[in-house]
Amino acid sequence: MSIDDILADALRLVKPDRLEEARVKTLSSIVLGKVRGILASEGVDAEAEILGSVAKGTWLKGDYDIDVFILYPPHIDRGVLEDLSLRIGVRVFEDLGGRWILRYAEHPYVEGWVDDVRVNIVPACRSKPGSWVTAVDRTPYHTEYVRRMIRSEEGRDQVRLLKKFMKGVGVYGADVRVGGFSGYLCELLIISFGSFIETIRSAARGWRGLFIDLEGYYDGIEAARKVFGDQPLIVVDPVDPNRNVASPVSLTKLSEFTAASRLFLDKPSIVFFNPPSIEVDIDSIRRAIECRGTSILALAFEEPRIPPDTLWGEIHRSLRAFVNVFEKWEFRVIRSSAWSGEGLTVFIVELESRFIPGVKLHRGPPVDSREAYRFLEKYMGGDIRVSGPWIDGDRWYVARRRGYSDAYLLAMDVLKGDLLAYGFSKDIAASIARGFGIYLDGGLLELAVRCRSFLEYLYDLLDGRPRWLRFGFSKDTCG
Amino acid sequence: MSIDDILADALRLVKPDRLEEARVKTLSSIVLGKVRGILASEGVDAEAEILGSVAKGTWLKGDYDIDVFILYPPHIDRGVLEDLSLRIGVRVFEDLGGRWILRYAEHPYVEGWVDDVRVNIVPACRSKPGSWVTAVDRTPYHTEYVRRMIRSEEGRDQVRLLKKFMKGVGVYGADVRVGGFSGYLCELLIISFGSFIETIRSAARGWRGLFIDLEGYYDGIEAARKVFGDQPLIVVDPVDPNRNVASPVSLTKLSEFTAASRLFLDKPSIVFFNPPSIEVDIDSIRRAIECRGTSILALAFEEPRIPPDTLWGEIHRSLRAFVNVFEKWEFRVIRSSAWSGEGLTVFIVELESRFIPGVKLHRGPPVDSREAYRFLEKYMGGDIRVSGPWIDGDRWYVARRRGYSDAYLLAMDVLKGDLLAYGFSKDIAASIARGFGIYLDGGLLELAVRCRSFLEYLYDLLDGRPRWLRFGFSKDTCG
Repeated sequence: MSIDDILADALRLVKPDRLEEARVKTLSSIVLGKVRGILASEGVDAEAEILGSVAKGTWLKGDYDIDVFILYPPHIDRGVLEDLSLRIGVRVFEDLGGRWILRYAEHPYVEGWVDDVRVNIVPACRSKPGSWVTAVDRTPYHTEYVRRMIRSEEGRDQVRLLKKFMKGVGVYGADVRVGGFSGYLCELLIISFGSFIETIRSAARGWRGLFIDLEGYYDGIEAARKVFGDQPLIVVDPVDPNRNVASPVSLTKLSEFTAASRLFLDKPSIVFFNPPSIEVDIDSIRRAIECRGTSILALAFEEPRIPPDTLWGEIHRSLRAFVNVFEKWEFRVIRSSAWSGEGLTVFIVELESRFIPGVKLHRGPPVDSREAYRFLEKYMGGDIRVSGPWIDGDRWYVARRRGYSDAYLLAMDVLKGDLLAYGFSKDIAASIARGFGIYLDGGLLELAVRCRSFLEYLYDLLDGRPRWLRFGFSKDTCG
Repeated sequence: MSIDDILADALRLVKPDRLEEARVKTLSSIVLGKVRGILASEGVDAEAEILGSVAKGTWLKGDYDIDVFILYPPHIDRGVLEDLSLRIGVRVFEDLGGRWILRYAEHPYVEGWVDDVRVNIVPACRSKPGSWVTAVDRTPYHTEYVRRMIRSEEGRDQVRLLKKFMKGVGVYGADVRVGGFSGYLCELLIISFGSFIETIRSAARGWRGLFIDLEGYYDGIEAARKVFGDQPLIVVDPVDPNRNVASPVSLTKLSEFTAASRLFLDKPSIVFFNPPSIEVDIDSIRRAIECRGTSILALAFEEPRIPPDTLWGEIHRSLRAFVNVFEKWEFRVIRSSAWSGEGLTVFIVELESRFIPGVKLHRGPPVDSREAYRFLEKYMGGDIRVSGPWIDGDRWYVARRRGYSDAYLLAMDVLKGDLLAYGFSKDIAASIARGFGIYLDGGLLELAVRCRSFLEYLYDLLDGRPRWLRFGFSKDTCG
């Protein structure tokens, strides 16, 4: 199939039909009317607006939230703003007969469902650019900017293709867990490159060091680097020159997008937009672990009850600390990864081997250095010495026992020790201190049988290939 | 004990008594008279002289050869020189009733025994300095130089102490096997530093980069480096400015001498001159191997029948090639060493472990490089891939099977393959091709029971410490 045919297919996947368009419009105006009514009846000095992808017309078919913003004057007291908004939010859903829960981003807000459509009621301030009071104060300006720059339905379709492609290859989402591309960033990329395919062609050449500054705030990338530092991708926010819209994008996600773009151009396929779902069963996982030849160690503990972005920040940091321990003791780490869900957080570390030799060659100081004598005193006797010290070239060497030759025992000692000193985060250290489990190789199946989404995650981890690569690489697997 | 007391003790070990002095003189003049008589009776145009440590009076008690040089005019035909000298040498021993054998250095020469004293009859040319015909033409000049510069018995005693110390700490001997200090070099060091203790004090500060030029041929070390290159120690031969007397000294032996000198100054002891002999038995070796935790692999083959310096040159080179193979396949080598004797040559390689994990993390090319596609084609399928490829940062990674996870199987494949291509030397490759044995860990005992000197070598290798360190380090072990 040609790229054009595939894009036509993809567009059918992402473009809402008239019924959905009408439904979104109707629901939006009902909710907006409700909020405005409450604001008026209570005499609150604030306005309500629909913002986000619904307002911009760039949502993906069957995949939309209605974001209602309550916009207060910038001088409002923060406590008042929060209290008012929660009260209004709750009343909206009670009046419309929907479920709701409280969510926490920078501010608390109310998320609810009306006719099974998710509705967020978010407080913000009508700030002037550059004098932002809350993090979401930029949103009205973002919405306005995109509406002004992307006026045609064709333009909105290009955004939809890009979002869907990014979802398909797993790089969509600016939350800390994913570290990928936000919807707004997709829109700015389409504004910059003009179309989905030009965006992909550019990405395929490599975006590391790419600098996009639609409003020309900076006199070149060097000037921008002084503000943003050495980030892999810099896309200046048209509504805020001090913000890099691409700052959440990790180097890994940027590289994945490049690699997927190359592969898509080389072997175009709908699988990049719509990766096949996988039938995973416990037995195939068991076989994959058994014939692997590596050692997989999983650390499971109760998921700390903190907002997702905070949780994932702590997970990334603590997993890094956990991996550092193995590397410090010279266990060879093949890959590490974390999963969290259903109240459980799991760190997985795959090692070349659970056991490493009990003895190692240890290079000492130069023979004519001051340290030589201390080295000899340390290694001439005692249990740690196996043979030597001897001289090779201009240095002392000794064969000495390793501190740990079993990764499991190392992990146990660390996890029962002072986790903060190892660099684990506060909440995760506290959770592990309350209790943890270590699962080895086949033992991971115990966790997998408990939870379907962990099972799928484990399957992908064991395979190791991103799904777009697994299904997109060979001609025979992509239809 | 004070250093002075120890040096007095050491001097008693090294200084020949009057009886020995008289015997050496008598024997020397008997042999010299015999050689001169034969030269005269045959009308050979050559002179005979006693040279070397006997002529210089710097031999160690009970440890001397009588070196008789036959000095030909420089224009003599090489073949004639060799034939004549062998014929004369053989006749000397037949007339004096001694055993003899032929030896090969640069030229063949005759080594024999008269009254159990070793006598070498060596041909050389009466060359002018700088126009050397054979490598030993310098010897008359060396003997003359040392006699001129060291005129007192005290001076000769200082040479004896230094030689004995160097023997004791295992750095004496300029042959390729040892790669250490020659007797002539010891003499030059005493000439330079004035005494044994000043030589040791200087060495203790580190001799790397030391430059000794007694006759002032060079305008500083930089000028000398242009001739000698970046050798660790440069001692210009007073009789030949183009020769570095210290060129056989390896960095390791130089460092060992530095370390031993330091330790001697810090903890003076007679053990540096006279290391205790060790009682080695098979059982202690067995225990040492068993509780070690490493893997020792020995390769044994028939000793090639070539002159010792050539043999040890080939051994060093081939052992390095053998070790390279293990390191290339990521086995971790703790130490390697070679032994040769009684018709057998043995390479020993100690590994952290005979087995390494069957799977390894393999870092691939950057995602935006040209090589990325080839990497994916190679690792997307096939038996070598275990999981991945995946992206981390800006690179592809894959977990792949190792080529070898058993060092024994690796060694077998290499030894049955093209050894020259691996960098083994010609004679050793040929010997291995005729047959070899691989012995693992406890299996080494099989070799050790065959041969006492291999047993002692193995004991020292397992302990790892130079003997001077083992007995010289702690106050309680050195008397």
